[in-house]
Amino acid sequence: MRRVTVLGDGGWGTCLAILLGACGNRVTLWGAFEDYIEELRSKRENVKFLPGIRLPDDLELTADLSQALEEADVVLVAIPSLYLREVLNRCRSAEWKKSLVVSVVKGIEPDSLMRMSEVIQTLVEPKQMAVLSGPSIAYEVARGIPTAVVVASFQPQVAEEVQRLLTTERFRVYTSCDVVGVELGGALKNVIAIACGVADGLGFGANTKAALVARGLVEMARLGVAMGADLKTFYGLSGLGDLVTTCFSPHSRNRSVGEKLGRGMTLHQIQCGMEQVAEGVTTTRSAVALARRYGVEMPIAEAVHRVLYVGWSAEKVVADLMLRTPKSEWV
Amino acid sequence: MRRVTVLGDGGWGTCLAILLGACGNRVTLWGAFEDYIEELRSKRENVKFLPGIRLPDDLELTADLSQALEEADVVLVAIPSLYLREVLNRCRSAEWKKSLVVSVVKGIEPDSLMRMSEVIQTLVEPKQMAVLSGPSIAYEVARGIPTAVVVASFQPQVAEEVQRLLTTERFRVYTSCDVVGVELGGALKNVIAIACGVADGLGFGANTKAALVARGLVEMARLGVAMGADLKTFYGLSGLGDLVTTCFSPHSRNRSVGEKLGRGMTLHQIQCGMEQVAEGVTTTRSAVALARRYGVEMPIAEAVHRVLYVGWSAEKVVADLMLRTPKSEWV
Repeated sequence: MRRVTVLGDGGWGTCLAILLGACGNRVTLWGAFEDYIEELRSKRENVKFLPGIRLPDDLELTADLSQALEEADVVLVAIPSLYLREVLNRCRSAEWKKSLVVSVVKGIEPDSLMRMSEVIQTLVEPKQMAVLSGPSIAYEVARGIPTAVVVASFQPQVAEEVQRLLTTERFRVYTSCDVVGVELGGALKNVIAIACGVADGLGFGANTKAALVARGLVEMARLGVAMGADLKTFYGLSGLGDLVTTCFSPHSRNRSVGEKLGRGMTLHQIQCGMEQVAEGVTTTRSAVALARRYGVEMPIAEAVHRVLYVGWSAEKVVADLMLRTPKSEWV
Repeated sequence: MRRVTVLGDGGWGTCLAILLGACGNRVTLWGAFEDYIEELRSKRENVKFLPGIRLPDDLELTADLSQALEEADVVLVAIPSLYLREVLNRCRSAEWKKSLVVSVVKGIEPDSLMRMSEVIQTLVEPKQMAVLSGPSIAYEVARGIPTAVVVASFQPQVAEEVQRLLTTERFRVYTSCDVVGVELGGALKNVIAIACGVADGLGFGANTKAALVARGLVEMARLGVAMGADLKTFYGLSGLGDLVTTCFSPHSRNRSVGEKLGRGMTLHQIQCGMEQVAEGVTTTRSAVALARRYGVEMPIAEAVHRVLYVGWSAEKVVADLMLRTPKSEWV
């Protein structure tokens, strides 16, 4: 039996805590806000982020970070990218050094342009590190809908350990050693999901979205390969798989942001009405900055950037994308 | 101005005939049934297969195959795979030899296991040959929804000629020289679409479908590469792009067949209620036969085959897929 701590009481963190418990681990779920943790404790339900799912009685809940980390063999990090550095800075205890840390955080840090596992590695230097990503809407995993994800580590045996920790009849875990690719896939897909949302908001159909998914994946892979990732990772669960789910799910926050942009709302208007963070809004800036740094073309990310930050209209951006000089599929 | 003949008055053939006309070509649309062609002629609408779209006045309509082929510079073949050989056998005129033939037929001939362009090539020996595929629901293209497709030919200038023939502001055509990959992508995706439909019929969600899409693409590419296709084609418009559209479209016939299987209907019951052919039903048999011939693993195609032809229940097949030994993503 492993002692596992999950950091982050959002939908995905809560779902993974339940799953880890069902796999026979002793699990603690940490959340930043004492009063919300108290609510989880009394209701045995995460009403805001994973409604309708009962939290098992033996799931420990705490808002005390040091306590959460104490004695954990495995720490699963499920904190929104925006708050990751802040939380880790609060507790750079020596405890981390003997832990296996699994990051499920999706994003690229603005300015530093670091991947989330790089941020974790730099701040807390865990003994072992893995990243987990893939098409996994928490709402569905928690209901036992068949799901497949990928876990990557530079050390194959670490990926295999995480695989053993989490695999169930309904949750299939594949392994990979391409940390960069798995992490970038999970982050960059949110940018393309915003583009797909824009297409939805403009009233376009499945053809447009499929074209955005296919061409979006080409530019995600182009950047990834320039950054040292393996091309085929982008065509696996953490790239294509996650991208497809996000682009077609009515529940995706990133797709929804795009849809509202497509209907003519501004970023400011959209953000005022949102409870949870849409990672893609920040990742778009990071993606465009990385594309420039590595000298690769990312026309769809650039287009989303223009709509989000430069004030271009959604119509103009789509017309622009469609009217680029016709070319060969792979150049 | 080119003289173009489209063979096949289904939704896609009709849509392409309209598009070719809008691009300034002189277009003839051929259909097999004189009485249905007469209906198109009088109503100026293809009520059965492309309702709500007006046929332009200068679109010529005929059920006379020799007349349709006479003087055509370009012949676009949009006949269901099941009837392709029969129609071509009816008219192996010398006319073909001076034509550029573009196939949009999706399938793999049972028994011969030939691709559709191979069937065409063998029977009518056209001067030049190209294949066109990609995420292009006729209903949407006809309404001007932005769409991107790919056209492949062994001769680059032929692909470019077709690109010029069809490109509009709303219909973007990419070129490729991977005929085998583009054609296999368009055919094999229908098998995976049936699998996605099964998942829908069982009440599963986006996670399951994304996993089927990602893993389905891996096995499509595995067979394709064994047959001489270029891996990356499967991750472009004609593979991934078309697959995504088909798997998530409520209008896809192949996905619908799967959905009914997932709800417990048999193939026989389903086929009794269908007007148009669902290509994937036949392609599944061809795909499994090809997988055996080339010695590659295609677990999803095998699973669909068991549900369609061996009488396994959908639940059993899904349980089987999910419980395979956990493994690395790319082996």
